[in-house]
Parts: sequence; C-alpha cells; structure tokens
Amino acid sequence: MPAQPSQKEEADAAGSDRGPATRELRADARHNRERILRAARDAYAAHGIDVPISAIARRAGVGVATLYRRFPTRASLVTEAFAEQMELCLGVLDEALEDPDPWRGFCSVIERVCTMQAVDRGFTGAFLSQFPGSADYDRERARAEEGIDQLVRRAKETGKLRQDFDRSDITLLLLANGGLEGESPEVSLAASRRLVAYLLQSFRADHAEPLPRPAPLELRRIHEPPQQH
Amino acid sequence: MPAQPSQKEEADAAGSDRGPATRELRADARHNRERILRAARDAYAAHGIDVPISAIARRAGVGVATLYRRFPTRASLVTEAFAEQMELCLGVLDEALEDPDPWRGFCSVIERVCTMQAVDRGFTGAFLSQFPGSADYDRERARAEEGIDQLVRRAKETGKLRQDFDRSDITLLLLANGGLEGESPEVSLAASRRLVAYLLQSFRADHAEPLPRPAPLELRRIHEPPQQH
Repeated sequence: MPAQPSQKEEADAAGSDRGPATRELRADARHNRERILRAARDAYAAHGIDVPISAIARRAGVGVATLYRRFPTRASLVTEAFAEQMELCLGVLDEALEDPDPWRGFCSVIERVCTMQAVDRGFTGAFLSQFPGSADYDRERARAEEGIDQLVRRAKETGKLRQDFDRSDITLLLLANGGLEGESPEVSLAASRRLVAYLLQSFRADHAEPLPRPAPLELRRIHEPPQQH
Repeated sequence: MPAQPSQKEEADAAGSDRGPATRELRADARHNRERILRAARDAYAAHGIDVPISAIARRAGVGVATLYRRFPTRASLVTEAFAEQMELCLGVLDEALEDPDPWRGFCSVIERVCTMQAVDRGFTGAFLSQFPGSADYDRERARAEEGIDQLVRRAKETGKLRQDFDRSDITLLLLANGGLEGESPEVSLAASRRLVAYLLQSFRADHAEPLPRPAPLELRRIHEPPQQH
C-alpha cells in the first residue's frame, strides 16, 4: 500500500505545476491561497504581525516556497490577509448606511461585525491592527471610521441611540467581544450574541442613565491583540 | 565608573544572605516574593499554567535559584499566585452578601471584580483557570460559585435584577472585561468602567427586553486565556 501524502506534500504539489488538470490546479491554488490567508490571520491575531513566515506556512500546512510563490513579500501577505476582512466590514457598513432606519442600520453593523469576530478568531487582530506602510489599507480604514461616525450620527438623530454614545464605544465593544474568542466557535457565537443583545439594550436612548467618561480608545491606536503586551 | 548592577543581580542579592540589615532583607524578600507572584500571574495569563519556571524567573527579574528558594514546588507557586486573587474575590463577595440592599451588593461585586481585572492583567487567568490537583483551590472556587448564585438570587428577589439573568452572564462579563486588558492600566480601567456601566444598565429589570439564550459558560470550564487556543 503506498504511503498517503502528507497534508503539506499535497499542498505543495497543488501549488506546483504538477496538478492533474488546469481547472483542478486552479481550484487547488485558490484553496491554498485561502488556507494561507486564514493561517496568516490566525497567526497575526495570536502573535502579532511579527510572526515568522515559516510559522504561517506551518500553520497553513504548506511549504515556505509555496507561500512565497503566492505572496512574494511579507507586506503583500499582511495586506491581503487584512484586505478581505476590511472589505467585509466596509460592505456591512455601506449596507447599513443605506438602511432607511438608521437605528436598525446601527444595530445590524454591530451584530454582523461581532458575529464575524466571534466565528473568525483572526478577525479582531486583522481589523484592529495598525499595519504600517500600506496606503491602501490606511485609506480603507479612514473610510471605515468615517462610515462609523456617520452611522452613529444618524442613529442619534433619530433619537433612538443615546446621546452620550461615543465612537470609542465601538472599539470598546469590539475589544469586549474579542474577549469571548477563546471558546469553540459555537460557544463564542452564543456568548457574543448575548453580550451584543445586552449592550444594544443599554445603547438605547429610552432609559439611559449617566455613564462614566468614554475611554480613549481609537481603532487605530490598537496595534495588536491584548495578550501580546 | 562602576557598572550598575542589573535588576536581576540586585534581585538575586536581595534574595540571598548578603542584605545590609535583617529588616531590609525581610522587606527585600517580601518585595521579591510579590514580584515573583505577579510575574507568575502575568505569565499564566499570557501563556497558561504550563509556562516554564525559568520564564517566570526571567519575567520577575530574579534567578531561578531565588525563585525555587521561595517556592520549592511548581504547585506551591501556582497555588500562591492564585490564592491571593481568590481571597480578594471571596472578600468582595462576602461583603456584598452582607449588604442589606442585594442589588447594590450585586453591582458592587461586578464593579470591584472588573476593576481588579482591569488593573491586574493576570487576574482573569488566575481567577478563571482550572488548576488541577489543588483541593483547597477547588473548595474556594466552589464557595465563590455558591456566593455568586446567592448574590444573583437575592438581586432577582428584589425585582431589580432581570429575571432572565443567568449565572453564565457573570463569566460572559469577566471574559468581555478581560478583552480590555491590552491597553495601559489607566485606559483599561476607564474602558472597564464604561463597559460595566453599560452592562449594569442592561441587567436592570425595569425595561428588560428579550435576550438570546445564555451561552454555556461555566467559570470552571475556562482553562486558559483566549489567545492560547
């Protein structure tokens, strides 16, 4: 009986020119690419963006050569890993800003982003990290921040969102929700839903009571996930 | 100019018999002990309780020999590091249970424990970790859990705490608050105060709206801090 190829060998083969047919090769390459990006996001979330490329390759189950073939520079990997999440977030924000009910739009952004964060552990790191040297990324994040400001302003104008809600409360919420990441995705998700439901109730203007001052938490001030300091 | 002794050398000297006077030696020893316990808590919080003793010694700025002199076994270090936090928590609980206003008692436990957690990064790991093989510790945690149940029941009986509040929401809150730990102690504290104020408002029965089911989060199910999985 021939030995089964290891996950790594299969992945390396898929990344090389030896695939059985072009279509399958393309599917394999795409699969590999997604696997590398996911491994990179997980690694960045767990260890910050200075994690060695070899550790990401190992996590993805591909060879270092395969990884370099897909992402020739370190920056290209980091940018790509972050770009996908950023795009998701911007999409959610854009949809919410088009919602004729600004309070519903506000709630949907929080619910959807927190759900993404709960099921994808790399999400917080990716979304909150500061990645120096990528103008595209900085521009997109500036767009996200403007979108959030708009969302908050519109929700306040309807009178549904409490007037003392602060933009930094979004960061607060993401950090708090990020604290639920350690469990299985199912448990994290259940916990996140419950936390978000509690918080959305307290964000309502109806029966708001005084709060302590907002914490100085800017999205871009957060460089890496909490456990790394 | 003579070279300045390193922090480690100073600490080793303080832990040895070469101290200038007995009183100073005792103060130094106590200082060393506290430093080791703090380093242990930080290390456990960051890397789980399997972190090597040498890493804790390095973090504390003492030699491994000094550490072993204070804590001859691994278990004695872990138990001591956790015991202090556990005692603090039990004290807070006991005081709250004696409060003639059960809702105020409930709020004070949450506020005080979350404040401790915000300023002491090792706190969540210590309080939430499962440390196998310490009967004392298990007994104390069982006592803490009973105290929490009592606190919740009493607060519900007054009609101030919402009826659908679940014990697991305490774990939820601690995990969420733990997510704020990455910033400076000042910022973590400000963030924690704001988060707790929001959550306490949503825990009130007055205007409670339906919530998703509680997440299956038991204090003792949480073995290590989130980032380690």
